[in-house]
Amino acid sequence: MREMSLEGRFFDFKRYLEAKRKKVEVELERLVDGLPKEERVVSALRHSLMSGGKRLRPILCIAAAEAVSRDRSCMDDVFLAGCSLEMIHTYSLIHDDLPAMDDDDLRRGKPTCHVAFDEATAILAGDALLTLAFEVMSSRAGDPEADHCRWLRVVNLVSRAAGACGMVGGQMADMSAEGTKLSLEALREMHSRKTGALIRASVSAGAILAGASRSRLERLEKYAADIGLAFQVADDILDVEGDPAMMGKAAGVDARREKNTYPSLMGPEEARRFARELVGEALNALSSFDERSEPLRAIARYIVERKR
Amino acid sequence: MREMSLEGRFFDFKRYLEAKRKKVEVELERLVDGLPKEERVVSALRHSLMSGGKRLRPILCIAAAEAVSRDRSCMDDVFLAGCSLEMIHTYSLIHDDLPAMDDDDLRRGKPTCHVAFDEATAILAGDALLTLAFEVMSSRAGDPEADHCRWLRVVNLVSRAAGACGMVGGQMADMSAEGTKLSLEALREMHSRKTGALIRASVSAGAILAGASRSRLERLEKYAADIGLAFQVADDILDVEGDPAMMGKAAGVDARREKNTYPSLMGPEEARRFARELVGEALNALSSFDERSEPLRAIARYIVERKR
Repeated sequence: MREMSLEGRFFDFKRYLEAKRKKVEVELERLVDGLPKEERVVSALRHSLMSGGKRLRPILCIAAAEAVSRDRSCMDDVFLAGCSLEMIHTYSLIHDDLPAMDDDDLRRGKPTCHVAFDEATAILAGDALLTLAFEVMSSRAGDPEADHCRWLRVVNLVSRAAGACGMVGGQMADMSAEGTKLSLEALREMHSRKTGALIRASVSAGAILAGASRSRLERLEKYAADIGLAFQVADDILDVEGDPAMMGKAAGVDARREKNTYPSLMGPEEARRFARELVGEALNALSSFDERSEPLRAIARYIVERKR
Repeated sequence: MREMSLEGRFFDFKRYLEAKRKKVEVELERLVDGLPKEERVVSALRHSLMSGGKRLRPILCIAAAEAVSRDRSCMDDVFLAGCSLEMIHTYSLIHDDLPAMDDDDLRRGKPTCHVAFDEATAILAGDALLTLAFEVMSSRAGDPEADHCRWLRVVNLVSRAAGACGMVGGQMADMSAEGTKLSLEALREMHSRKTGALIRASVSAGAILAGASRSRLERLEKYAADIGLAFQVADDILDVEGDPAMMGKAAGVDARREKNTYPSLMGPEEARRFARELVGEALNALSSFDERSEPLRAIARYIVERKR
């Protein structure tokens, strides 16, 4: 899949995704290796964290930093932030899958955490991952070379995105809405919190650690809001039309649960058109960025074309 | 209850505790007021957070700062940190009370969060409180007057204390040990993580925000380790001998669950002697501190004398 030129060479997006994903996994392994391996809660969090996700949030964080700065010296920080965001994403999946919540047995083709271990362990594994994310984001506290001010901003924006006004509140709203019909506006608001907030935080964290100006940060936030919503619309479409083998989970789950989805509220054709429109707006927000924003552009296109 | 002289006046510990507790509750109310009131998850976290605990962790944080510095300018920061620690303590109680964990219906004389609301809401309320704690600890990120370096250190020490190597790991170890007999060493290790880590973090956070030197910080950490353990020993004794009306929960719960406790492993007399010895060591660790450490000393004595 050869795409646009990036600094004179052809930009191979598939290779880019794969290279970043591998580096993120190495870094995640390193971070989890610091925990006591023999303990059950650590085995449980590792089971969920190292089960081969797309690593979209860390890759967005990295791509946003690359779009902002040619200076590679911030990249260690950017990987730390990206891994923290992946930990928070994984904790949210572990808790959402619990019997008291969405009660899912399968995730990425593997038993969910409470199935592979037990409910108490899964609750604690989620708690530990969320906490570890903040430990990682503050791990350079004792390093006089670190930019403590930027890191504290990152802690703040990530905690806002993950909390009651963001992801946690969105999950609550999603559960409360099961079986009732939402307006498109309410559906958009719910997703903007449940999945959108953390996607926006991923892009912002990378941009801040790379020293983005306020105006570039604003444009990247617009990009992130658009792709975050597009991602959810595409997810809803995949749930209706996707191949269970590719997705690692059953299809048609949303409909059986009477979840509000874009295809169910808009119709599938209109939902596909809406997703493409959002990607167009996301690309527009990057119009003043140079070729270093190519990975961000490719991610935007990938989000609506992916099969899982 | 008039005690030692503090800066020339008599030190009224009961009044001190009451005054600080009230200020902490006002600050907690202010911090929670920023969340969307009408939402279920916010009502649930407020139910547990504002249900009248002793506020021991914030008060330790404040007293540690007072022991280190006469300068009141750090006190706003110290209250923020103290409230964050109370949020983390409360989240841990909400999750520990869940049916999959300790399955408790009553806490501080009120229905536990999952009884008053439901399991899913209680899981999310705990998640939201843990996340809010980090939002509060990073809330001065945009303030150029703030000491970002100190705050990032506080985020780091608190996240370490609350995570898999600290509180979460301790709760896992406690659950795994039910029905098996632990050695005294293993019991001490478990409590050092489950309750001790957050108590030590409370003292350290206050000391760091007040600008403690490394040697003073070390002595305060020794104090905190001793009172943290003494607190747990006293808790175990209260569970055997306490008045349920004073405690707001049933007595004898530990024995029915075959939990390992100090009275069960050492005998009640020896456990009481051990608690007093720990308090003596804690007071010793403060020997080079002046009269401003009187609140910390009074807290150490109070921990083994309290009735709830």
